Amino acid sequence: MIVTALTEMFGLDHPIVLGPMGGVAGGRLAAAVSNAGGLGMVGGGYGDPAWLKTELALAQAQASRPWGAGLITWAIGDGILELVLQFQPHAVMLSFGDPAPYAARIKAAGCKLICQVQDVAGAVQAREAGADLIVAQGTEGGGHGGARATLPLVPAVVDAVGSVPVVAAGGIADGRGIAAALMLGAQGALLGTRFYATSEALGHDQAKQRIVGAQGNQTQRTRVFDIVRGYDWPNGYTGRALHNEFMARWSGREESLAQAADVETPAFWAAAGDGDYDTAMVWAGEVVDLIHEVEDAGSLVKRMGAQAEAQLAIGSGLLRKP
Amino acid sequence: MIVTALTEMFGLDHPIVLGPMGGVAGGRLAAAVSNAGGLGMVGGGYGDPAWLKTELALAQAQASRPWGAGLITWAIGDGILELVLQFQPHAVMLSFGDPAPYAARIKAAGCKLICQVQDVAGAVQAREAGADLIVAQGTEGGGHGGARATLPLVPAVVDAVGSVPVVAAGGIADGRGIAAALMLGAQGALLGTRFYATSEALGHDQAKQRIVGAQGNQTQRTRVFDIVRGYDWPNGYTGRALHNEFMARWSGREESLAQAADVETPAFWAAAGDGDYDTAMVWAGEVVDLIHEVEDAGSLVKRMGAQAEAQLAIGSGLLRKP
Ligand SMILES: Cc1cc2nc3c(=O)[nH]c(=O)nc-3n(C[C@H](O)[C@H](O)[C@H](O)COP(=O)(O)O)c2cc1C
Ligand SMILES: Cc1cc2nc3c(=O)[nH]c(=O)nc-3n(C[C@H](O)[C@H](O)[C@H](O)COP(=O)(O)O)c2cc1C
Repeated sequence: MIVTALTEMFGLDHPIVLGPMGGVAGGRLAAAVSNAGGLGMVGGGYGDPAWLKTELALAQAQASRPWGAGLITWAIGDGILELVLQFQPHAVMLSFGDPAPYAARIKAAGCKLICQVQDVAGAVQAREAGADLIVAQGTEGGGHGGARATLPLVPAVVDAVGSVPVVAAGGIADGRGIAAALMLGAQGALLGTRFYATSEALGHDQAKQRIVGAQGNQTQRTRVFDIVRGYDWPNGYTGRALHNEFMARWSGREESLAQAADVETPAFWAAAGDGDYDTAMVWAGEVVDLIHEVEDAGSLVKRMGAQAEAQLAIGSGLLRKP
Repeated sequence: MIVTALTEMFGLDHPIVLGPMGGVAGGRLAAAVSNAGGLGMVGGGYGDPAWLKTELALAQAQASRPWGAGLITWAIGDGILELVLQFQPHAVMLSFGDPAPYAARIKAAGCKLICQVQDVAGAVQAREAGADLIVAQGTEGGGHGGARATLPLVPAVVDAVGSVPVVAAGGIADGRGIAAALMLGAQGALLGTRFYATSEALGHDQAKQRIVGAQGNQTQRTRVFDIVRGYDWPNGYTGRALHNEFMARWSGREESLAQAADVETPAFWAAAGDGDYDTAMVWAGEVVDLIHEVEDAGSLVKRMGAQAEAQLAIGSGLLRKP
């Protein structure tokens, strides 16, 4: 077992957090991760109330250990935070924006406040808002994020936030990456893309198969999928997805895409519904190189945790008296 | 002491390699790193014969332990490799391009062949050319490089190249990063930006002070400095430098810069000579966040090595029987 400030905060067996992937990390996946000894997170995304009610109820019913839920900070609508808190998650994770307006309500509910940040300034803002845990997220990760890479970002955030524990995210898919995160001064690792390719993840099987088949140089950060969906992301955030035909067609022509929304937006949503990933996006990070099959989330957590333990033991085995 | 395939290959005390920074890693810096127990590398860059003769002679004279020299593969001119080999380096590092045309001559001279690569395909190419050591270089690093981030790239390269030892580069500036590299399956770490801010590095003191003062979100990958200098880099390579006025003026207007070369190129070289870093570039990586002062390279190697050892010991201290 690996013991860190993260595992002690939630009583985990492994310093592993499920990324709250919008629409992909449902209640079943979150519960599977938590029950295997990690921290499962429901991916609340833009905050659809019907989806949240279903998935949070599932997590609450199926998880026998602490779990949490994540929301996109700038998109939190009226009443959504209250809806989430009714299901009594042990943690709420806010990503992409200033957490200050929501921090007090989350903490008053007895929840831990987790903030996912993309740079040192964001980490300082999160600490000042009272974050109990800060996730330093690198640009190589899948889905939305910023521009800084995980390896240099994590120690810079650790140095900047003093006693607040830090978790590394972006580019981690096995026990080697988890052990590396611990060496950087993080208390654990948060994984997204790796958990997308699990049997419990929501989403089409074709999307999971594309992740299994893709190579790390076949992902790219882009705004085209936000533009076609009409999501008005603040400056500085882009989403990393697998290369596909839609991305190739519109990259560099973002303004034309915005103007063609009348035609493109309904066609896009139809493709997404059909699981047509030549048009719809598969959010995924560079770490697809390390993902070779769709697995059960619970055995994955245990296997990665054991591999991280083995790596730490190997590391100290490299030490010799001079 | 940390013992890995890298330290055994060259008899090092620390699994630390100096990046062969063109024009910055001269013979004095290379010797200082080697004499402190790392592997020093002279940065031969584009292969200026006069510069090489001076700096390689210095390295040969001052280094009492193995050292090496690096060249930019696509820029190797007639006779340059032979010139380098005359000084009997223990290793030659080739970066940015196919090493195959040079591998046999390097190995025939009794030198180890080190290849710095930016993706998995490049790593496989290096292995096939007979590389003794492969440096997997991430996009967060200073100077020229590719698009993949270090944390997910290193384990993917390790998995792809079988028994060839791998070293991680890009985003590492202290013992935490070195220990993290080992956890990823690398046999050591190669550091550039951190060694730029040493007293032995060539280059203006103002450049070193800018590195000390800069933050990680003030670096950017760009082609503008290659365009103004007339260096015809192959597709896929850009250089990461500190933000400055020149970069702000020309980013996104690369074609206009190429057309304005008559005026801009002489002005640029004059600024570079004067140490005017509003115009000239300071190549540096995101890891500037972790660099707080200009240090002596030898004490830096020893301090970082000791910190890496301490981190590995802390890592195994996190392990508990369940
Ligand atoms: C399919 C997918 C959807 C994501 N959606 C969200 C989200 O809604 N909110 C969020 O905070 N992060 C989201 N992320 C980012 C993850 O929280 C995490 O930072 C990222 O996946 C880490 O990098 P990795 O993919 O290399 O593991 C998403 C990631 C993926 C792959
Ligand atoms: C000032 C500077 C000059 C560089 N010049 C070269 C070079 O000529 N050849 C080379 O292979 N790499 C060069 N690099 C890249 C380094 O070898 C190394 O990959 C990189 O610095 C690692 O990332 P880091 O800067 O985060 O340590 C240079 C890096 C810097 C900072």
